Amino acid sequence: MKTRERILHTSQLLFNEEGEPNVTTVDISNEMEISPGNLYYHFKGKEAIIEALFARFEVTLSDILRAPLEKELSVEDSWFYLYVVFEEIYNFRFFYQNLTNLLHRYDSINRKYKRLMELKTRTAHALLSEVANHGILSIEDEELNQLCESITLLLTYWLTYCDLKGQQLGPPAAIHQGVFQIVHLVAPYLSDEYGHIYRECKALYQAATAELGH
Amino acid sequence: MKTRERILHTSQLLFNEEGEPNVTTVDISNEMEISPGNLYYHFKGKEAIIEALFARFEVTLSDILRAPLEKELSVEDSWFYLYVVFEEIYNFRFFYQNLTNLLHRYDSINRKYKRLMELKTRTAHALLSEVANHGILSIEDEELNQLCESITLLLTYWLTYCDLKGQQLGPPAAIHQGVFQIVHLVAPYLSDEYGHIYRECKALYQAATAELGH
Repeated sequence: MKTRERILHTSQLLFNEEGEPNVTTVDISNEMEISPGNLYYHFKGKEAIIEALFARFEVTLSDILRAPLEKELSVEDSWFYLYVVFEEIYNFRFFYQNLTNLLHRYDSINRKYKRLMELKTRTAHALLSEVANHGILSIEDEELNQLCESITLLLTYWLTYCDLKGQQLGPPAAIHQGVFQIVHLVAPYLSDEYGHIYRECKALYQAATAELGH
Repeated sequence: MKTRERILHTSQLLFNEEGEPNVTTVDISNEMEISPGNLYYHFKGKEAIIEALFARFEVTLSDILRAPLEKELSVEDSWFYLYVVFEEIYNFRFFYQNLTNLLHRYDSINRKYKRLMELKTRTAHALLSEVANHGILSIEDEELNQLCESITLLLTYWLTYCDLKGQQLGPPAAIHQGVFQIVHLVAPYLSDEYGHIYRECKALYQAATAELGH
């Protein structure tokens, strides 16, 4: 791995584990056993590292959210899709842990973050509209908007919320719970003949958590 | 106002406006035009101030959450009840803006905060069970648990989420939106003959936002 890449990798790891405000560039170079000068040659400070990590997060999450979905997405595929979105958020969880403060400090990220949050809402809206057009969901426009807000909020804060509750779930269990929580938000709008989708998701959730020993 | 009380009042104001990590005890004493020594006489540092503010928040919010509710709560009363919960969170919003980091730094608050979050979930559960017993809601036990998690998450993060979206809503508008968002989570479980409750809430929401000029 090139030094620049190793710096990003180590920073992401330390930020996630210690919390971004508690990690300095000196901590990062110490952890890597390189000189602060070497680190400075690649990044002119912590803000530059955070910007590079955010750019990476933005590209990956946007790609996932914009991925063209198959016309006939199976329940398993949909579950896996949501899992991957949460997993990506987990990989960059330090952004989410102190979001307000971080965005307050780094103005360039602030604008980009807002766009990413809007993309979450728009993606949820596009997917659910499509599903509604197929008659699987039965929901009014205005209710759909509110549902997409709740989904965006849940995607944004679920893992932080689990962390605060101190449940000591491993990340896969917390993510499966988050996916099921989103399914639960959508479930009341399933048309009568598609009620089995909720039961299938529940079975998936139970199988996943049983496998993880919860 | 006594000096101790003025310190708490000023700290709460500055923390909310500037973000708690950006405010020092010197900023607080400067704002009050008292000496740092005078402040130190009352509080041995920022942690002591934050603990005192949290204790105050905890008492007020617990009292609201535990308030015995009338048997027959009108729709307006329920709306107002949720409004007051959000308003209290708004008054101490600095706790919520960087929750993970703040709880990481102040261990004594960490445990108390968890209890408060559990109390939110338990209160939602007790209230909705009561309503379900009256036949107003029709919901299975397990679904009720998931619904209460979503409500707790929404109560905890809604105002921060509005802030991040940068909608420039004033606090009353954001709070009314949050209350309506919670109503929307509960609405699908209203028994058929109580569907009018959602429509009444929608009318309340529209009246409130029209009054605020949104």
